[in-house]
Amino acid sequence: MTETNPTDSQTTVTELKAVVQKFVDERDWNSFHNPKNLAMSLAIETAELMEHFQWLTPEEALVVKDDPSRKHAVGEEVADCLSYLLAIASKLEIDLATTLRAKMIRNAVKYPVPDGGTANPSEK
Amino acid sequence: MTETNPTDSQTTVTELKAVVQKFVDERDWNSFHNPKNLAMSLAIETAELMEHFQWLTPEEALVVKDDPSRKHAVGEEVADCLSYLLAIASKLEIDLATTLRAKMIRNAVKYPVPDGGTANPSEK
Amino acid sequence: MTETNPTDSQTTVTELKAVVQKFVDERDWNSFHNPKNLAMSLAIETAELMEHFQWLTPEEALVVKDDPSRKHAVGEEVADCLSYLLAIASKLEIDLATTLRAKMIRNAVKYPVPDGGTANPSEK
Amino acid sequence: MTETNPTDSQTTVTELKAVVQKFVDERDWNSFHNPKNLAMSLAIETAELMEHFQWLTPEEALVVKDDPSRKHAVGEEVADCLSYLLAIASKLEIDLATTLRAKMIRNAVKYPVPDGGTANPSEK
Repeated sequence: MTETNPTDSQTTVTELKAVVQKFVDERDWNSFHNPKNLAMSLAIETAELMEHFQWLTPEEALVVKDDPSRKHAVGEEVADCLSYLLAIASKLEIDLATTLRAKMIRNAVKYPVPDGGTANPSEK
Repeated sequence: MTETNPTDSQTTVTELKAVVQKFVDERDWNSFHNPKNLAMSLAIETAELMEHFQWLTPEEALVVKDDPSRKHAVGEEVADCLSYLLAIASKLEIDLATTLRAKMIRNAVKYPVPDGGTANPSEK
Repeated sequence: MTETNPTDSQTTVTELKAVVQKFVDERDWNSFHNPKNLAMSLAIETAELMEHFQWLTPEEALVVKDDPSRKHAVGEEVADCLSYLLAIASKLEIDLATTLRAKMIRNAVKYPVPDGGTANPSEK
Repeated sequence: MTETNPTDSQTTVTELKAVVQKFVDERDWNSFHNPKNLAMSLAIETAELMEHFQWLTPEEALVVKDDPSRKHAVGEEVADCLSYLLAIASKLEIDLATTLRAKMIRNAVKYPVPDGGTANPSEK
C-alpha cells in the first residue's frame, strides 16, 4: 500500500527526517543526541556495514545483493547509518538536499570529467 | 530559486540518488564503486565528520551549528557521508525509504517507549 | 608466573607481533590478511571499542576503568585493535618502535610545547 | 645507533607507552585524553590509514610496501594509530601484553585450527 509503504520516489528527505525525529522524541533521547555522540554512532553503524564486506573480494562484494538474506542484513545496517545521518542533519539544522547538491558542484570542479579517459578517484 | 535549489521538503530520495549517480557515471567511477570500497569510503568520510567534534565536550558540540563557518565545514562532511550512503543504496538496489521505515518499526520493538521514564540508549 | 604471563615491561614489540603472526599462520589466514582488509578490520574493532563510550559523558568514560567487568570488556576490544595493528605492521614490514619514535619527533615540531600555557589539540 | 633508534626487538611495550605519555604530559593534553575522545581519535587515525587502500584492489594493496614513499606515508598513519592505542591502554591501566595474550587464547577456542583445511575468518 502506497500510504504505508512509500518508496524512495514517493518520500522526501524531510519525511525521512521526521521518521527518525519521531522515534528519538518518543524515547526522550534528545539529551544523548548531541552531534559528537551522533557522529560516533554513525561511525559505529558504518563499521557494522563494513563488517559484511570485511573478508570479501571486490567481486564477491558485488554479488551480495543477489542473496536476499544477505541483502536484507546489509540493508539493516544501511538503514542504521541513514538514521544517524538524518539525526545529525536535523540536530545541526542542515538541509541535506541543498548541501549535497552544492557539494557535488564543488566536487565537479575538483574532479573534472575527463576528455575521453576514466577519472581515477585515487587521485583525489 | 526553487527549480535550482530544491530543499529537503521538495526533494525525494530518488532525486538525491540520481544526483550522486550522475556524478559517478560522468566520471566512469562505477568500476571503483563496489560495495566494499563504498562502505570503506563512508567510514572514511564519517571519520572526517567526527574530526570536527573530536576534542569538543558534548556541550561545545551542540553549539557548532551557531557558527556559520563551522556549520558549513561540518555540512561538507555530512554531504560526503550522504553521497556514499546513497551510492551504496543504489549499488545494492536498496530502497532507503522502505528500509528505514521497516528498521524503525523493528527498533521500536527493541526499544519500547517507556511508561513515564526516559529510555536509555546505553541499554541497547 | 613470568614465563607464561609476561607484562608490558617484559615484552618486546617483536614478541607481541609473533603472538599474532603465529595465530594467523596456524589458521592459514594470510591470504585474507592483505593490508586493505586489515585496515578495514582495525576500523571495525575500533568501532567496537568506541561503542563502550558511545553514550557516556567524558566524565563517565573516565571511570569505566574502575568497574572490573567493564574494564575487562573494553580490554578485549583494545586487544582486538592491537592484534590487527600488529598484523598490519608485520604485513607491511613496519618497525613500530622506530616509526612511532620518528613520528613523535615530527609531531613535536608540529605541536611545540607551549611556553607556559596549555597546547590545544583542537588546533591541530 | 641502538641507543637512539631501538627497534621492535629492543623495545618493550612499556617503553613505547612512555614515549607517548611523555608527549602528552609535556603538552598538558591529559584533560583532553579521556577514553571517549581517545577511542574517537583512534577511529579517525584508522580512517586515515584506510584511505591509503580505499580504491586499491587487494592485490594492489599488497605491493604498497614495495614503494618506499607510500610505505613511509602508511607508516605515519600506523604510528598515529599506535600512539592513540597506547594512550588508551595507559589511561585505562590496561597491560597490553597480558590482555593480548589472554584474548588470543580465547580467540583460539573460538576459531580452532582446522584439521587440514583452511579456517575462514568470514565465519567469525
